[in-house]
Amino acid sequence: MDADEQPIDTEAKRDEDAYALSTKVVAAILDSVEAGDREKLIALMEPLHAADIADLLEQIDGEERRELIQLYGREFDGEILSELEESVREEVIGFLSPQVLAEAVRELDSDDVVDLVEFLDEPQQEAILDALEDVDRAAVELALSYPEGSAGRLMQSEVVMAPEHWNVGQAIDYMRGSDRLPDAFYHVILVDPRLHPIGNVTLGRLMAARRDVPLKELTEEMFRVIPATQDEEDVAYAFNQYHLISAPVVNADGRLVGQITIDDAMIVLDEEHEEDILRLAGVGEGSISDRVMETVKARLPWLAVNLVAANMAALVIAQFEAVIAQLVALAVLMPIIASMGGNAGTQSLTVAVRALATRDLTNANVGRVIRREVLVGLLNGVAFAVVMGLVAFLWFGSAGLSLVIGGALIVNMIVAGLAGTGVPVLLDKLKVDPALASGAFVTTVTDIVGFFTFLGFAALYLL
Amino acid sequence: MDADEQPIDTEAKRDEDAYALSTKVVAAILDSVEAGDREKLIALMEPLHAADIADLLEQIDGEERRELIQLYGREFDGEILSELEESVREEVIGFLSPQVLAEAVRELDSDDVVDLVEFLDEPQQEAILDALEDVDRAAVELALSYPEGSAGRLMQSEVVMAPEHWNVGQAIDYMRGSDRLPDAFYHVILVDPRLHPIGNVTLGRLMAARRDVPLKELTEEMFRVIPATQDEEDVAYAFNQYHLISAPVVNADGRLVGQITIDDAMIVLDEEHEEDILRLAGVGEGSISDRVMETVKARLPWLAVNLVAANMAALVIAQFEAVIAQLVALAVLMPIIASMGGNAGTQSLTVAVRALATRDLTNANVGRVIRREVLVGLLNGVAFAVVMGLVAFLWFGSAGLSLVIGGALIVNMIVAGLAGTGVPVLLDKLKVDPALASGAFVTTVTDIVGFFTFLGFAALYLL
Repeated sequence: MDADEQPIDTEAKRDEDAYALSTKVVAAILDSVEAGDREKLIALMEPLHAADIADLLEQIDGEERRELIQLYGREFDGEILSELEESVREEVIGFLSPQVLAEAVRELDSDDVVDLVEFLDEPQQEAILDALEDVDRAAVELALSYPEGSAGRLMQSEVVMAPEHWNVGQAIDYMRGSDRLPDAFYHVILVDPRLHPIGNVTLGRLMAARRDVPLKELTEEMFRVIPATQDEEDVAYAFNQYHLISAPVVNADGRLVGQITIDDAMIVLDEEHEEDILRLAGVGEGSISDRVMETVKARLPWLAVNLVAANMAALVIAQFEAVIAQLVALAVLMPIIASMGGNAGTQSLTVAVRALATRDLTNANVGRVIRREVLVGLLNGVAFAVVMGLVAFLWFGSAGLSLVIGGALIVNMIVAGLAGTGVPVLLDKLKVDPALASGAFVTTVTDIVGFFTFLGFAALYLL
Repeated sequence: MDADEQPIDTEAKRDEDAYALSTKVVAAILDSVEAGDREKLIALMEPLHAADIADLLEQIDGEERRELIQLYGREFDGEILSELEESVREEVIGFLSPQVLAEAVRELDSDDVVDLVEFLDEPQQEAILDALEDVDRAAVELALSYPEGSAGRLMQSEVVMAPEHWNVGQAIDYMRGSDRLPDAFYHVILVDPRLHPIGNVTLGRLMAARRDVPLKELTEEMFRVIPATQDEEDVAYAFNQYHLISAPVVNADGRLVGQITIDDAMIVLDEEHEEDILRLAGVGEGSISDRVMETVKARLPWLAVNLVAANMAALVIAQFEAVIAQLVALAVLMPIIASMGGNAGTQSLTVAVRALATRDLTNANVGRVIRREVLVGLLNGVAFAVVMGLVAFLWFGSAGLSLVIGGALIVNMIVAGLAGTGVPVLLDKLKVDPALASGAFVTTVTDIVGFFTFLGFAALYLL
């Protein structure tokens, strides 16, 4: 840790391919599949992590996927299945022989099996459950009894618990004597006689303490018990906000039924983010490996909403046909007003949607935030009104047109700030996901207001 | 764990306020500040987690913030500072007396101090470093010697290591005898005589093994060593992809200098996502607690780019002024083409930008993805061409106009799929962040192509 060994770079090294599959490896694997060379395939796949093999399977096409899996045969392991995204996973399960599938799932932890089977068709689900040992099957079925997207689905049933009156020595002796410890765990959960969790002791603290110290004196300050029915989004928020590593999950009676660890919470957080980004762009559940018809279906609804909105805007323009016929320059300039309003609205709404998701926008500051957005809209509006007024004057030589476009820009950008924040806040209060619906509303508002003020000002002052 | 205790709900419970600060608590705290009632303030703040106090400080206005902090006085602790976002943090540090600040930072881990000071002005940074003990100051200064955004800045210097030839008993005795174990750790890192890390043993596995088992036999299969200069984004990707809990960090000579734990990686992942969402919407580094002028400055560049793009589209329309003057219905309908193209383009580009970020879009599948996007554009284009053709016919009674708008829609939606995928891929190859720049390019392309084909078809076939 000598300070003189420090590097002299001034920027962090960004190696694009630091962890990705290299193009070379992918090509070599596909070659071996084409040549039907099983030994070479196995040798090439051996050093790869299951997550990388899953990525590979997602990136190649359906035919190559089938051939690869059939050639790979019994080498296929359960973790690859867990790592695959849903649309590809179902297809891959169909390619596996029943024996390979059964062996693959038997290696998995209960939470991974739940994740695997929860969205499968009945027959595929049954086939997998049948392959499990009874105790594992019971754990999976308990988890499946909790609602979709709940903590109960996310938890693993394997926990290490200790009675609240134990001391460090007893806990260590118990753990060292037990032959059924989970593979990875970070806490010993203290429970009362009714199996209600009352505290967490980290393994590190256990290691550092004397044998006669009561466990109760070592519990972490930050302790949160998660109800099994709680939404996984709230679980991820709690882990992120309070820096939890693992937390006990309880049933309706408050009894310990499992635990959730930070790596599961990280996956949920990742998925929630992904969902928010895609919803903001009107791409329901899109993924790069969906097939054409799935993609068309996923994107069509949003485009249909947009078509209706665009036609409403067109109706506004139609009211001013006579004005446009007299001054065609209006038709040239009017998309600029709509475009600037739409972009400013998208900026405001994105900040608002994110702040709602991270709970940074609350009743305590909503008034202040809206005032700020309106003020930002006004200032940006004035700045661009000056620029665009000048452009319009130079282009069409009309001071009147300059004033009209400037005025419309200011109005529309204030409205963009107002709608961009107000619409998501309102949708959130109505329990509609603001990421999903705000975009269509806000751009409809800015389009309609933009065309109406621009053409309306023109009708009033230019003719 | 009885299965009959399962809940009967069919949907996970989503409690909006499960973890957020309640409006009541916020109001009570502000009341106590206004009344200058220090004891009441301390009593109300006592049960709150530092992260929640930070959220509270972000949500109230500047004046309330100052009064609260001055009243709270010496109760203020370092963790609140770590949890604050940058813009508010700098202001809060200014409110704290030197003694309170010094005491606050002395409680923090080295990685939190680094996070705190790395973006502060020189004098504020010095004040904090001076408050640290020598050994902590050295750790912070080592971290600061690594580039911004690197693993070296993210790591904590506290690790637990063991020589590779030790067995379980030796490791346990060492840990139980040591009085300087970190507060939270999950692995014992095996090192060779030159302090190069060669494997990780989880504490759980250590607990489960017999005392005479060599540590070497217990190392985790998944082991990754992180160079201190590696980009934190790559670090977060590795933790997420390979489900790491902690990983050793090494200097240029391969010597162990610290470790990164999953909670740090989770924070980076969260920030990267946030950045991507905001960049896609053209909101540089926006946050809900930025002040008006900061927000105006952050949003102006993107709006300026959009103004240029909108004027280019207007120039295209201007070429067809004579056509529009003859048929004003064109001015009514033309924004529909641009709007549909823009939305379809945003859909494609968002999926592509995300897939690039998660490394799911690579050389192996880029050709297939582009073909798919073009096909999706064609199919959606045909669907909406039929609908919009019908609407236009009913509205304006012209079969020619129907065909023109339908044809332009199909062309523009194919172009949207092509540009929506091609532009981000190209920017990525040019090492420009596709999240930042794709939006402006793609909507410019769809606007220009949309107006040009629609008005061009009209000029050719309708006049």
